[in-house]
Order: sequence, then C-alpha cells, then structure tokens
Amino acid sequence: MPEAAPEDVVLYVCTTCRAEGDTSEIRAGARLRAALDARLGAAPVPGLRIEPVECLSVCKRPCTVAVASAGRWTYVYGDLDPESAAETLLAGLGLYAGTPDGIVPWRARPEIFKRGVVARIPPFPSQADGTLPEAAE
Amino acid sequence: MPEAAPEDVVLYVCTTCRAEGDTSEIRAGARLRAALDARLGAAPVPGLRIEPVECLSVCKRPCTVAVASAGRWTYVYGDLDPESAAETLLAGLGLYAGTPDGIVPWRARPEIFKRGVVARIPPFPSQADGTLPEAAE
Repeated sequence: MPEAAPEDVVLYVCTTCRAEGDTSEIRAGARLRAALDARLGAAPVPGLRIEPVECLSVCKRPCTVAVASAGRWTYVYGDLDPESAAETLLAGLGLYAGTPDGIVPWRARPEIFKRGVVARIPPFPSQADGTLPEAAE
Repeated sequence: MPEAAPEDVVLYVCTTCRAEGDTSEIRAGARLRAALDARLGAAPVPGLRIEPVECLSVCKRPCTVAVASAGRWTYVYGDLDPESAAETLLAGLGLYAGTPDGIVPWRARPEIFKRGVVARIPPFPSQADGTLPEAAE
C-alpha cells in the first residue's frame, strides 16, 4: 500500500454518476473528472490526487465526490455540476488543505460545499486528545 | 495519535441526530449510542470501538452512523431506528470486519444497510494495485 504524505489530499470522483434524464454517452461523473484533469493539467496542485471511483453510493445526488486526507475529516459532496464545478471544487480543496483538520470555517466554504454536503467522517484513527469540533460544522 | 490495529473497526455514532418532531430530552442519536453501549457491555466485540460524534452532516436522515477501518471502505448509514437498530448494526459490523476490504456481498447485507446507505468512501490511502470493486456494490 503506497504511503500518503501527511499533506496529501485525495479527491475521489464518482465516474458512474449520471444525472436523471441525462442520456449523454459520457456520464456526468466522467465529464466532471475530465474537467478536473484538464484544470490540473494546466495548473497542477502539489499534493492533490484525483482518483476515479465507480460509485460512492450517493446515486441520487450526482455528481458526487469525496475528499480525504490523513488526519483530516473526510467530506462527501453531491449535487455538483459536471461542467461548472471543477474550478470551485479545486478552490475549496485548497482551503481544506490549508487546515489542520479539514474543517474549513463555514463562512469561508464555497456555496456548492455548503449546499452539497452529503456526509462527513472524523479522521481515522481518532485524534489523540479525543476532542471533536462543534456540531454541524 | 493512537494507532489502530489493522483489524480495528470504528463505529462513529452521531449523538446529535434528532428525528423530525421528536421532542425527547435525550436525542435519538444519543439513545442509539446508549443502546449500542448496553449491548457491547453485555457482549463485548473485540476490535470494535464506538465513538460518539457531534454531527456527521447527514441531518436529514437520522439516526446516522459511519463505519471505518484501516484498509477497508468507509460506509455511512442513515435512517436508523434508535430503539431497534443496535442489534442489526452490530451483526452487520461483524460481517464487515470479516471482509478484507469492508465490502459485504449485497445479498448478505442487513436490510437497514441496503436501504440506509448514505455514502461509501474508498480505503485511504489507496490500495496498491489500484483495483476497485464493481459499481454500486
């Protein structure tokens, strides 16, 4: 198993997500991934990896992604537009990577993160002191 | 940060979950946690830890839990009944702990896991060979 550097951030992108009624040959999730790859190709972000995933089990809220990093909270987001979300997503990941625990102050979060949050999961394994942030952050 | 043994399974239980219209003094999430603690007190499950969390950001589908383990997929479940879910949850976690990757075959999953799945996130860091299970499992 490859080691992830502490600062590494992984963005899992569901490539099988398909919007209701969308009959495009290339699924919305795959289009979002392509848009992210294109942006990162033009302007690489050190420490960020995009990993395509076949299904994050959030099928009713396409497009869907999850962001994870050692020692940080994992966040799952849905309702992302495949054509327009990439830029905002990458900006939001920059904020995430700039925190020690992955919790970006609510007011600083991109709107698509506020509206699209599906779930969040604490860092694994647990923090040494057992403290957890306030509810609903 | 404490090390988790590879076989350790952590069940995060949202203790702030409250069902719509539920005015109980003790919230549904806290009641689910108490039910789990009671069962584990009577019949401990080696390698399983219950961790209370203030909000997993799945507020519309109480009660909510997440199960995580090193090298395994993380699953988030909602729509759990605080009074009746504990026994089935613990049985489902036993199946999860018995897999190498956390993916219990669909047919073997408890009904509350099938209906209540909110999201799943790949093992972090990634598996060495990059292979991922089939979609929608």
